[in-house]
Amino acid sequence: MNFHTRKWVKPEDLNPNGTLFGGSLLMWIDEEAAIYAICQLDNPHVVTKFMSEINFVSSARQGDIIELGMVATNFGRTSITLHCEVRNKVTRKSILTIDKIVFVNVDHDGNPFPHGKTHITSSDEKFKNQ
Amino acid sequence: MNFHTRKWVKPEDLNPNGTLFGGSLLMWIDEEAAIYAICQLDNPHVVTKFMSEINFVSSARQGDIIELGMVATNFGRTSITLHCEVRNKVTRKSILTIDKIVFVNVDHDGNPFPHGKTHITSSDEKFKNQ
Amino acid sequence: MNFHTRKWVKPEDLNPNGTLFGGSLLMWIDEEAAIYAICQLDNPHVVTKFMSEINFVSSARQGDIIELGMVATNFGRTSITLHCEVRNKVTRKSILTIDKIVFVNVDHDGNPFPHGKTHITSSDEKFKNQ
Amino acid sequence: MNFHTRKWVKPEDLNPNGTLFGGSLLMWIDEEAAIYAICQLDNPHVVTKFMSEINFVSSARQGDIIELGMVATNFGRTSITLHCEVRNKVTRKSILTIDKIVFVNVDHDGNPFPHGKTHITSSDEKFKNQ
Amino acid sequence: MNFHTRKWVKPEDLNPNGTLFGGSLLMWIDEEAAIYAICQLDNPHVVTKFMSEINFVSSARQGDIIELGMVATNFGRTSITLHCEVRNKVTRKSILTIDKIVFVNVDHDGNPFPHGKTHITSSDEKFKNQ
Amino acid sequence: MNFHTRKWVKPEDLNPNGTLFGGSLLMWIDEEAAIYAICQLDNPHVVTKFMSEINFVSSARQGDIIELGMVATNFGRTSITLHCEVRNKVTRKSILTIDKIVFVNVDHDGNPFPHGKTHITSSDEKFKNQ
Repeated sequence: MNFHTRKWVKPEDLNPNGTLFGGSLLMWIDEEAAIYAICQLDNPHVVTKFMSEINFVSSARQGDIIELGMVATNFGRTSITLHCEVRNKVTRKSILTIDKIVFVNVDHDGNPFPHGKTHITSSDEKFKNQ
Repeated sequence: MNFHTRKWVKPEDLNPNGTLFGGSLLMWIDEEAAIYAICQLDNPHVVTKFMSEINFVSSARQGDIIELGMVATNFGRTSITLHCEVRNKVTRKSILTIDKIVFVNVDHDGNPFPHGKTHITSSDEKFKNQ
Repeated sequence: MNFHTRKWVKPEDLNPNGTLFGGSLLMWIDEEAAIYAICQLDNPHVVTKFMSEINFVSSARQGDIIELGMVATNFGRTSITLHCEVRNKVTRKSILTIDKIVFVNVDHDGNPFPHGKTHITSSDEKFKNQ
Repeated sequence: MNFHTRKWVKPEDLNPNGTLFGGSLLMWIDEEAAIYAICQLDNPHVVTKFMSEINFVSSARQGDIIELGMVATNFGRTSITLHCEVRNKVTRKSILTIDKIVFVNVDHDGNPFPHGKTHITSSDEKFKNQ
Repeated sequence: MNFHTRKWVKPEDLNPNGTLFGGSLLMWIDEEAAIYAICQLDNPHVVTKFMSEINFVSSARQGDIIELGMVATNFGRTSITLHCEVRNKVTRKSILTIDKIVFVNVDHDGNPFPHGKTHITSSDEKFKNQ
Repeated sequence: MNFHTRKWVKPEDLNPNGTLFGGSLLMWIDEEAAIYAICQLDNPHVVTKFMSEINFVSSARQGDIIELGMVATNFGRTSITLHCEVRNKVTRKSILTIDKIVFVNVDHDGNPFPHGKTHITSSDEKFKNQ
């Protein structure tokens, strides 16, 4: 799994208890997962279809740097399944894991459409961003 | 189930495909669930612990009004479990359902703490906000 | 009056004095009032036309939960008048009251258009959110 | 009256009808009025107390530049009253006028406190920002 | 140079160190510069082309009021060059200076287009906002 | 250079011309540069001190995925200098380059403080995020 996008936890991301607001974290995950799916499927038109259960293992505090990791685990005919892990970049402590996030490849009318991909092809998985 | 908070889907809430950005929706759900848990547990210090799988049944478009429904389905010693449904307010069409969202009641140090509640007590469930 | 939408006052909603930023509150009210008007008039094209004077009775602090209440008080030919109250959900203490918020029902060109409504019809007023 | 702060209406500021969201406009006004009050009273601790009625004369569209004008019209013992006008910067067409916005000067505990000012002293009113 | 737009540094504008987030400041500058260019060139279609080096002389804290100053220093055939200074409104202490910000006047297809201006014409420079 | 953080250009990131708002881009760059500096200096207290000139080579449109690349090019006694490139992730077309972004390592009082680093040590540069 590659960890690409990183976030710096700022005051605007906190809940009233002073820890990272879960809703902000879920929003970051959805965006990063969409980006990963778009890159793998080579199609900007993808929609989130499913997320498996989410276990919030630990939280983050103001000033923490967290990183979001994604890897494709399955390619369906019109879908792609990702595995996601979010962790503290410095301590490597896990914040949460989502076993499956499924995106569907759609056409301009929003209908499912075969993507023709069967394995990870996006260069940043193979070449590690060199 | 009561549907309280409503949202008006504005341009700032859209993904690049022009439909409601899933991340914004998840953020709204997390805030509304936290509010519901706080009201039932009578304690502002709650943390999201778990969400069961999320099936994105349909989406929403700019100008749609959606409403978020929550109901408590179980009271543990230090936790509360909610059931959530999001739907289009006008058409009543379901957007997504989350079977279980678990919050933990914590003390000022963030440790789990018994809440002493065993059933729905918040007035807006019993008296329907009259 | 029904109180639907609730907000959890987060750090991003504060003014530099550490209390709820009045501007955020006004933004929430305008959105909730628009939603109420849209539901009653059964038309997504409404525009804010007038607000009567606003008396900021008390403020809110980080972690407070506030709720926004609206009720239609008059139906004109092309307009609808709402009464609004915002209060702390836990203490029921009033934060502000706006006697009249007027929305105008418009057609696709933005011109006033008769809405044909004469009284509250939206179900969540009659059936209390069942 | 001086018109200082200007805003460029961007997609994030629009309501679903594609015109400037009233809530965003009210938020901008509240911030600009607070800034004006702080500068005149020479105290960063001010709170919005009252707004007289608001007549939304016209709206704004994406790409429009609007400017916010404020002028102090009365100095009470612990309060200051402003008059506000918002207009399109290019066409000078009025968007809305608020006859009175009252701020109260408060001490660190949030209690009203005499400000000792009796007239406009902030240099940008007298010297026009040279 | 005229200082128009002012900002009140709120919690949402802070970095995790509790000072003004540089990114927020740069965003404010880009918007204000675009507004200035649009007003001078009398064309809403301008694009940021270049910024000269930025020296962050001092920062700002929560509650500070800062003001953004712009002045046109050169008119090219299709471009305009601005000089920018940001300072604390109360102490007049400089926060940063950008010697040159260049905008290009474009047509509807985004191609550079002669603007026909040779000097400052926008009224707020000549008449000081009267 | 490694390209970590990626962004999906959404409606909320657009300027009124419908292209990526320069201010949003600058904000993303400042956050990503701070994260890179924090990771290399192993200290969460860093402040942006200087940015060399910025040439906006091309823009981005709604739906584009852009990636932000950083690499440390110099370690001073209390500072670190980064080189930054932003490009379209799919087409690899450059959006802008900033030759030097300088951060200063500070102590809790905000004063410059020696960081003791002389070369790139953060693992994601050496091991490519394995």
